[in-house]
Amino acid sequence: MNTPRNRRIVLAARPQGEPTPSDFRMEEMDAPAPAEGQVLLRTLLLSLDPYMRGRMNAGRSYAKPVEVGEIMVGGTISEVATSRHPGFKEGDVVAGYAGWQEYALSDGAGLAKLDPAAAPISTALGVLGMPGMTAYAGLLEIGRPKPGETVVVAAATGPVGSAVGQIARIRGARAVGIAGGPEKRRALLEDFGFDAALDHRAPGFAEDLAASCPNGVDIYFENVGGAVWSAVLPLLNDFARVPVCGLIAQYNEPQPSVGPDRMPQLMRQVLTRRLTLRGFIVSDFADLHPAFQRDMSAWVREGTVRYREDFVDGLEAAPEALIGLLKGRNFGKLLVRLAAPAS
Amino acid sequence: MNTPRNRRIVLAARPQGEPTPSDFRMEEMDAPAPAEGQVLLRTLLLSLDPYMRGRMNAGRSYAKPVEVGEIMVGGTISEVATSRHPGFKEGDVVAGYAGWQEYALSDGAGLAKLDPAAAPISTALGVLGMPGMTAYAGLLEIGRPKPGETVVVAAATGPVGSAVGQIARIRGARAVGIAGGPEKRRALLEDFGFDAALDHRAPGFAEDLAASCPNGVDIYFENVGGAVWSAVLPLLNDFARVPVCGLIAQYNEPQPSVGPDRMPQLMRQVLTRRLTLRGFIVSDFADLHPAFQRDMSAWVREGTVRYREDFVDGLEAAPEALIGLLKGRNFGKLLVRLAAPAS
Repeated sequence: MNTPRNRRIVLAARPQGEPTPSDFRMEEMDAPAPAEGQVLLRTLLLSLDPYMRGRMNAGRSYAKPVEVGEIMVGGTISEVATSRHPGFKEGDVVAGYAGWQEYALSDGAGLAKLDPAAAPISTALGVLGMPGMTAYAGLLEIGRPKPGETVVVAAATGPVGSAVGQIARIRGARAVGIAGGPEKRRALLEDFGFDAALDHRAPGFAEDLAASCPNGVDIYFENVGGAVWSAVLPLLNDFARVPVCGLIAQYNEPQPSVGPDRMPQLMRQVLTRRLTLRGFIVSDFADLHPAFQRDMSAWVREGTVRYREDFVDGLEAAPEALIGLLKGRNFGKLLVRLAAPAS
Repeated sequence: MNTPRNRRIVLAARPQGEPTPSDFRMEEMDAPAPAEGQVLLRTLLLSLDPYMRGRMNAGRSYAKPVEVGEIMVGGTISEVATSRHPGFKEGDVVAGYAGWQEYALSDGAGLAKLDPAAAPISTALGVLGMPGMTAYAGLLEIGRPKPGETVVVAAATGPVGSAVGQIARIRGARAVGIAGGPEKRRALLEDFGFDAALDHRAPGFAEDLAASCPNGVDIYFENVGGAVWSAVLPLLNDFARVPVCGLIAQYNEPQPSVGPDRMPQLMRQVLTRRLTLRGFIVSDFADLHPAFQRDMSAWVREGTVRYREDFVDGLEAAPEALIGLLKGRNFGKLLVRLAAPAS
């Protein structure tokens, strides 16, 4: 086969606040040729996720930032285009972290082969992948829901939030979901089976949230921060648990924020209500992965856990799609379709 | 015996900010006579503790506030003056919660008999009592120190802080203590065996703290809040644990505090460093009490855990002593001596 051309997107500049299209740059070049022991991967799907905003900053976060000029990081589903690796053959479909590009080399490390007959391959980036595992680990290990407890989650039509709500219900808890707009709110009730659903953009949101949690809040799965956190905080019960998974509403915010300083008050509430706040990232719970795979695959197969996907087409669409994700414009797990499987 | 006179101190007014002597009122009356099944207790020692400030407020806290006109709450060591209860005889020494008064009735509920030969009776209000148990439970259950980790605690010459540092060292961790003034700082190093000690009033405190924690901070046992918490926060390592036990520096503060608002930044740190913040009170860990009794008695007997006491004399001294405690004027476990044992 002729050497294919590769397109990739690199970080052009560190965003000040909200990212703009000019913070990204498309580059084009020949795809590399695999050496002995390597495969050339052709990207089929690129996952877009909130954590990517953090990686565009220079500051300390979980992981090394993407450097200016470096390719944007991202989880991917790829097809093996050329194999010089004994463990892979052409046409194999693998999940990995090839980043924002159409072709990538790999020595096989970190690749997981997928069985396209077992589940749609896209689910390996969503409900059966990192976002689903994030929901499972954070809710069950930190949140530890008990029957009858109230679990609140925002960004609830997203891949993490929708799994949090549905797993909470499987464990006998009451799931209250928050999302932006009436259409998402309806999806929470009708598609995902939440017990109550709120539109955080509606007037009177904080009051409606309080009314939807008549017994207070036992677990708040924190993935947005900002105004939702402010509305939930007064509702937290004694011994409430707050797995802190993300703060998407804050990612574009300049810091520090204007006063009053609510930190002393937060600490007072942690003390008097004996709250637990605990930050985590999914890789902290790698030992739970087999249990997640077993449980979540079964739940998805049975239809106990449902999921929703939101596709955009072409690598060039990725920057605007990520910018939209940070504003809540996606509706379900956001994926960029780069190519269809050749096989 | 003639009916003795009883003196007691009630809450006269809810303090605005710092309590003042006029927030307390001394009352005098005949001591009550025990009915069948009751004992009359004569208070020997009254414990003064930071939590009392919170109970003087009307607002929600762990426990019901003291009402205006009600007797101030407090842990006590008493002698049985008159017994009409089959389980107690005159001269028995008991720990309980008789509050700020010289005599009290009890039906025996919540009283624990002490053996004055086993340990000084005052220790039942300090290292072998609630403060010691607070240190033990918060450090071991929430903090979970591992050998080589760095544990920071403030109010470190107090009964909780001094036990936290010494238990941390028993578990192989490095103990860094913070206290107010050079004399307390010296006591941390020379009497309590801390690995490093800081005076939070000294200029350059935050820089000195950072220099004293070259490997960062793995556990911060939070009992003061305010400026110490602000100095510790940037030093917390990934996966650091913060048992939140008290916020004495904030108890007298009006709220909300002036900006900037540091709450979003705190949540960001909880997330990216995967911090655990967890509030607790000692009664949350009642099931640990037998282990505490066994371990702490042995450590005190062996001299592995040392303690320091600060006595004031007479019930009338209690208000000023509590006011001073909230400003860090005590040096060790603060106790009011009301009477000597008759026996």
